[in-house]
Amino acid sequence: MAFINEHYLKLKAGYLFPEIGRRVREFSQLHPDKKIINMGIGDVTQPLVPSVIKAFHAAVEEMGHAETFKGYGPEQGYQFLREAILMNDYRARGVDLSANDIIISDGSKCDTGNIQEIFGNENKIAVCDPVYPVYVDTTVMSGKTGICLENGYFEQIIYMPCTKENGFIPELPQHKPDLIFLCFPNNPTGSVATKDILQKWVDYAIDNKCIILFDAAYEAYITDPQIPHSIYEMQGAKKVAIEFRSFSKTAGFTGTRCSFTVIPSELMAYDNRGQAHQVQPLWMRRHTTKFNGVAYPVQKAAAAIYTPEGKNEIKNMIQVYLENAGIITSSLTSFGYEVYGGKNAPYVWVKTNQDQTSWEFFDRLLVEGNVVGTPGSGFGPSGEGYFRFSAFARRDNVLEAMERIKNL
Amino acid sequence: MAFINEHYLKLKAGYLFPEIGRRVREFSQLHPDKKIINMGIGDVTQPLVPSVIKAFHAAVEEMGHAETFKGYGPEQGYQFLREAILMNDYRARGVDLSANDIIISDGSKCDTGNIQEIFGNENKIAVCDPVYPVYVDTTVMSGKTGICLENGYFEQIIYMPCTKENGFIPELPQHKPDLIFLCFPNNPTGSVATKDILQKWVDYAIDNKCIILFDAAYEAYITDPQIPHSIYEMQGAKKVAIEFRSFSKTAGFTGTRCSFTVIPSELMAYDNRGQAHQVQPLWMRRHTTKFNGVAYPVQKAAAAIYTPEGKNEIKNMIQVYLENAGIITSSLTSFGYEVYGGKNAPYVWVKTNQDQTSWEFFDRLLVEGNVVGTPGSGFGPSGEGYFRFSAFARRDNVLEAMERIKNL
Repeated sequence: MAFINEHYLKLKAGYLFPEIGRRVREFSQLHPDKKIINMGIGDVTQPLVPSVIKAFHAAVEEMGHAETFKGYGPEQGYQFLREAILMNDYRARGVDLSANDIIISDGSKCDTGNIQEIFGNENKIAVCDPVYPVYVDTTVMSGKTGICLENGYFEQIIYMPCTKENGFIPELPQHKPDLIFLCFPNNPTGSVATKDILQKWVDYAIDNKCIILFDAAYEAYITDPQIPHSIYEMQGAKKVAIEFRSFSKTAGFTGTRCSFTVIPSELMAYDNRGQAHQVQPLWMRRHTTKFNGVAYPVQKAAAAIYTPEGKNEIKNMIQVYLENAGIITSSLTSFGYEVYGGKNAPYVWVKTNQDQTSWEFFDRLLVEGNVVGTPGSGFGPSGEGYFRFSAFARRDNVLEAMERIKNL
Repeated sequence: MAFINEHYLKLKAGYLFPEIGRRVREFSQLHPDKKIINMGIGDVTQPLVPSVIKAFHAAVEEMGHAETFKGYGPEQGYQFLREAILMNDYRARGVDLSANDIIISDGSKCDTGNIQEIFGNENKIAVCDPVYPVYVDTTVMSGKTGICLENGYFEQIIYMPCTKENGFIPELPQHKPDLIFLCFPNNPTGSVATKDILQKWVDYAIDNKCIILFDAAYEAYITDPQIPHSIYEMQGAKKVAIEFRSFSKTAGFTGTRCSFTVIPSELMAYDNRGQAHQVQPLWMRRHTTKFNGVAYPVQKAAAAIYTPEGKNEIKNMIQVYLENAGIITSSLTSFGYEVYGGKNAPYVWVKTNQDQTSWEFFDRLLVEGNVVGTPGSGFGPSGEGYFRFSAFARRDNVLEAMERIKNL
């Protein structure tokens, strides 16, 4: 008799974004005349830049001729892309890694979920609250938690509240975790961590033999030169941190799919006898057994963003989204809202009016303003009373949305 | 303290193909003048066909303009591709499914490995022996097995020997499994299963509430009109079978990455209280949480193989490989070898000479003939004394390889 993985039954019914989709569809069907502006899901709106398109076409053309056709590539990615990442994202910032530490994949959602497979179920996981739901859901699926309690917390996950009181930066946890998910610039709050803050976390991980799972999907949005882009800018981090990066938000690759994960060869985890094991070969074993590499043309397209033209085009693309974030921030502030994030991140995190829950604010915004955002409580209990606006939208839509909110 | 998943320590050191790669590199370094012909790894050599290239380019172009740009698509794939698959691969063969039952992914290696996550670790898995190594390795990683024994078998896996005595078709197992991996046309033996044989397996699964994980990656190579292409051609199969298909071998997508998995809504698995649960929503939950869809241009490229021109071009491509298989079969037969497969499959399965192990034959072929194949024992203990030749090679190389083997 085939048995299901019963851990799946612990999951809460709706993943956040499908639930938003459901409510929006329902409203649209009742009011087909209303033009809805979506500032909810963090999906890019600008097309791929010319350098990327050019490289993409050229690689597709290669696939059409026997002399240049590519079959299976290395599962961990082509050397040309790994080297470009190494030189531009790391060495250029003074971070010394090897191209072997960089493993190409098809998305940070995939990697932050799949990474759990190489760690045993005896690990206790710490997450920020609010948090990107994938970390929690994949932890539950893997069997590392108990059930979901009334308060929205899963048993055996260590939640670290991030509120305006602590500047949306988690305190070191009271109960010791084994794996710690951190995301800076943060989704959903848009907060960033200084070097001092991140060094404190790295030191904590070294002292406690934890591993930090550092999601840097939004690093390209950092404008403040004092803010670190990589966890490896901290001393000792190569011994305790895995870094996830993606081309999704950096280069508009949400529909093109390319990302990478960095696992330095120094990084160790332990067996039950306390013996240390390198983590990189474990991930490589998973990656080569359960994955077959990213499409060659997609890797060529990704590599193009490291050319001089590519870099410039990408910078301009990000600038547009950052300006959107600035417009949202200043508009909502002028309407009397408390507003956070939006300076080094594409997300603006807003306090709803005192008596409104996040979903009440969502419904009012949808029904009265025909604007869609993301309810903060969807990211965790401490997100209740907050609301996320995404700067990934067309400029005219951002301006119109702000005008509508003004008139609410 | 971060703990590793200790099940990984049970895995045997070398995945088959890296070990082959190592021996070939070693030989090449010692003999840089020798031209090696690779008929080992099952990787295609012909370029993508013109219809695919055309659609691929057009979709890349769409990604470069704001009006046609695509961000996140549905994780389960675009409707245009799911519908094309439904109409051409299933309805055209009298199999009634819904497009919702078809879930697009980036590879059958990924899907056959990842599918284990939705099934509990109390499941006992049955595999053919010899077998595609991914089924076993991912079973071990997931924690469903004991250690690897001296004889090469993992504890708690049910192995079903496939030898010339049973025509390379497994017998029904004596100990009851919960999940049964079947692959027809078979990798590595090239054997195919008739309707009677597959119906027997489906009936067995229905009687025992098992699930058949049916890998049909090579169905496009079936030439005999009596051989079924899909497990769903069998009565009742929708209640007990998951089918995996890939564009890798069908359309040369090994470096382009697109595949799909079929999970009919009727398919059930059970919790520990014996209560039935639909499997499709479990897989959808995994897929939407841990995967973000296949690149839009790749899905457009894949859909092009269902156009009239695409179908014709693909057919010709497959014909070339099938002719290769025919040449390998007739040549080796004429040299006195016992030869199997190669008629409805791109693999030719050869009995080595009596006193030679598979790896001895591999080494002799490499050193004396400079030809690379795959040792049968790499696919499991019952593959010992056999050798796999892949028909995925250039015609001139196939002919030259046969000439060299003749002169051994």
